Amino acid sequence: MKHFTSIADVNDVNQLVEQAISFKANAFQPELRKGKKVGLVFLNPSLRTRLSTQVAAQNLGAEAIVLDIGKDGWALEFEDGKIMNGDKAEHIREAAAVMGRYFDVLGVRTFPSLTDKATDYSETLLQSFLKHAGIPVLSLESGTRHPLQSLADLMTIKEHWTKDRKPKVVLTWAPHIKALPQAVPNSFAEWMMHADVDFSITNPEGYNLAPEFREGVSVYHDQAAGLAGADFVYVKNWSAYEAYGQVLSQDESWSFGNDQLALTNNAKVMHCLPVRRGLVIKDEVLDSANAIHLDQAENRVYAAQSVLNELLK
Amino acid sequence: MKHFTSIADVNDVNQLVEQAISFKANAFQPELRKGKKVGLVFLNPSLRTRLSTQVAAQNLGAEAIVLDIGKDGWALEFEDGKIMNGDKAEHIREAAAVMGRYFDVLGVRTFPSLTDKATDYSETLLQSFLKHAGIPVLSLESGTRHPLQSLADLMTIKEHWTKDRKPKVVLTWAPHIKALPQAVPNSFAEWMMHADVDFSITNPEGYNLAPEFREGVSVYHDQAAGLAGADFVYVKNWSAYEAYGQVLSQDESWSFGNDQLALTNNAKVMHCLPVRRGLVIKDEVLDSANAIHLDQAENRVYAAQSVLNELLK
Amino acid sequence: MKHFTSIADVNDVNQLVEQAISFKANAFQPELRKGKKVGLVFLNPSLRTRLSTQVAAQNLGAEAIVLDIGKDGWALEFEDGKIMNGDKAEHIREAAAVMGRYFDVLGVRTFPSLTDKATDYSETLLQSFLKHAGIPVLSLESGTRHPLQSLADLMTIKEHWTKDRKPKVVLTWAPHIKALPQAVPNSFAEWMMHADVDFSITNPEGYNLAPEFREGVSVYHDQAAGLAGADFVYVKNWSAYEAYGQVLSQDESWSFGNDQLALTNNAKVMHCLPVRRGLVIKDEVLDSANAIHLDQAENRVYAAQSVLNELLK
Repeated sequence: MKHFTSIADVNDVNQLVEQAISFKANAFQPELRKGKKVGLVFLNPSLRTRLSTQVAAQNLGAEAIVLDIGKDGWALEFEDGKIMNGDKAEHIREAAAVMGRYFDVLGVRTFPSLTDKATDYSETLLQSFLKHAGIPVLSLESGTRHPLQSLADLMTIKEHWTKDRKPKVVLTWAPHIKALPQAVPNSFAEWMMHADVDFSITNPEGYNLAPEFREGVSVYHDQAAGLAGADFVYVKNWSAYEAYGQVLSQDESWSFGNDQLALTNNAKVMHCLPVRRGLVIKDEVLDSANAIHLDQAENRVYAAQSVLNELLK
Repeated sequence: MKHFTSIADVNDVNQLVEQAISFKANAFQPELRKGKKVGLVFLNPSLRTRLSTQVAAQNLGAEAIVLDIGKDGWALEFEDGKIMNGDKAEHIREAAAVMGRYFDVLGVRTFPSLTDKATDYSETLLQSFLKHAGIPVLSLESGTRHPLQSLADLMTIKEHWTKDRKPKVVLTWAPHIKALPQAVPNSFAEWMMHADVDFSITNPEGYNLAPEFREGVSVYHDQAAGLAGADFVYVKNWSAYEAYGQVLSQDESWSFGNDQLALTNNAKVMHCLPVRRGLVIKDEVLDSANAIHLDQAENRVYAAQSVLNELLK
Repeated sequence: MKHFTSIADVNDVNQLVEQAISFKANAFQPELRKGKKVGLVFLNPSLRTRLSTQVAAQNLGAEAIVLDIGKDGWALEFEDGKIMNGDKAEHIREAAAVMGRYFDVLGVRTFPSLTDKATDYSETLLQSFLKHAGIPVLSLESGTRHPLQSLADLMTIKEHWTKDRKPKVVLTWAPHIKALPQAVPNSFAEWMMHADVDFSITNPEGYNLAPEFREGVSVYHDQAAGLAGADFVYVKNWSAYEAYGQVLSQDESWSFGNDQLALTNNAKVMHCLPVRRGLVIKDEVLDSANAIHLDQAENRVYAAQSVLNELLK
């Protein structure tokens, strides 16, 4: 594995999940990647990703160094050919290349603008790091995907599923007051399409994901129909893809509560966190035995450890 | 010891102090708690606590990871049952539980509001972490106490006291331009009440500490009377407890200088830092051999190391 | 070596450079300074210095702890004898002394005011740390010098020079939109004056460096004359020293491009970064094989490692 920016970078998804599960049973192996250097660059705030990736690196004996660009450093220029006489102090060509000289792996978190679909979906920022860093790049969430989250999600489903048949996994939209990225639902859909599950999506009209993230997937605009018989429900808000970045609905009838849960096959309920209680998922569900969001969060450590172990080979 | 949030959590105070003194003589023992993970969450800025606790963890072979909530992360919701449609992105129920999955010990710094006495003195924020983290919690200063400071203070008194009799220890109020928490004086009083010392307090009228932090302790409103014959003087500003959080006096006659020192038994002068020179303690005292504030600061490392060593057992 | 704040602190420059080159060949030696503690205090933002010094410390088995004063901590008072009743919460006397108790080496980054020449050139801030820390102090750039950069620069020249004769090294001014410190050019000049090179400077009228940083050095106000026959060109903007801190010119004819390069002996082109592309150096040069700015940045790790190795002895 050269980089880790989407499922397409992974040779063997099952092996990666098995490795993550194995690390969960035996996490601290400091001789494995001893002395390796991991840079973690955040262009946006983070709690779980920052902490879990640091812990994962430490478990491997590697050293993680965190840099908050814009706060610890300064604003970066991503456009080529410009005369830099504005507010940007450094070009990504130098910033990425220098970090490529300091580290063995470079983790990068970027967010989409949610205003310019073409730029966001061409992953301009992430691609600049890939082009100029000269070392393996680890996505800590990008404009359109969050593959470390998806790997942890798949691992969590695997841990919680003991029956012989394929589980039915449903991704459902939920309301939120802000315009959120599509990265988590896109990425979850992409990984589920590759996994041994029966996957479908339910969201209000206007909230269909980009076509490449729902190819061959049933999409229900009636939440009740979508949730019927689900074994796992992934609850998540996202802003519209077609009316790009817009909040078209705050319909609280889509908030996930006991009424929704009752439609499922006593589903396990998932969320990537942070979750707004009462709005996205109701307390009655989050505080029930059906909720496995904390397992997902915990598994972020072992997902990251599994990926770092590969990238630092 | 399950948690460390006040002296009530400590089984054997003397043993903890002796362990700290022993670590000071032999600090670097990286095999002792090798690979253990310590999360340090700051809801407020910190210099000494942040640095000393990181150094303490490293001395034990543990890994400390610092997170500045609100700066590295986001604002947390502490109230239960709310629909989170405002500016808080995550509930303490998830934030604390997730960190509980990542770390072996969770250090937490919170500050009081100084406007709502009931909330501050019920330690709502700290209690939320205790309730939801699921792992040992280490107070890095809370609304009403700063036990790591008090442990370092007690250790410092012990190091500097060689006579056979009990030392006379006096806590004296000093002026300040801002409303400061009562956590340090509360906590110092609490620890001195349990220590083998003769303890009293002197403060202006209106500045009495909460009753539970001065039970059975003589309080003098005449500073000269209070300081007479002191072997150790702890100088500290705090805002009023009764007229909660208010600055009732900025009386500079309470600033601790040579005039005050002359009333004592050539006392050692203590402060937890940061100290405003000239206002709280005068240069003539801080730059004299009587001042032991730097020893207190240094001992923060060994106090934290002693406590972490217990909590990581 | 007791401190590292300028070339005057170095006993044997050649040996320090050789040590840095040796570390580049064999960087990870964690037993060398195992368990030593390095504090890195930033009063200003930093990318390369922060990351390279952390990596250098880790390579030696030492622990680096970063503190952003003013962001992680609070504003410091540097003036003696004041009654601290304003916005400064702590005096450098305590802050530096406390960090001196926690660490084995204290790295400090300060910037000049660019308004008060006397204060900047007397290095008030750095001198306060030197006076009160009580441990070796490592300059991470100060008001008038950036010796870690200069050491990396000298190392880079040595790596790239294979001929028998002395290389001709020219420092050239370039335009910028902001008033920048003189620390990098001052320091580079100081180190070149001590190195086995033929050193000269070219800058517009009014931009002469302080006399002590160009003693015995030829200064050309005609860039073409200054660049003629150069083997290495160090391109850098700085604000005026005489009209202190002012931007007297933004003359883009001094931007370093192919026209300037053509005047040299196919020179290697250097910059300390961050560099504003198009304004300071043109893309045509930065993206050519003549540019060695990334080697300079990489060598920051080994320069820091070489210095830390000495200071931690």
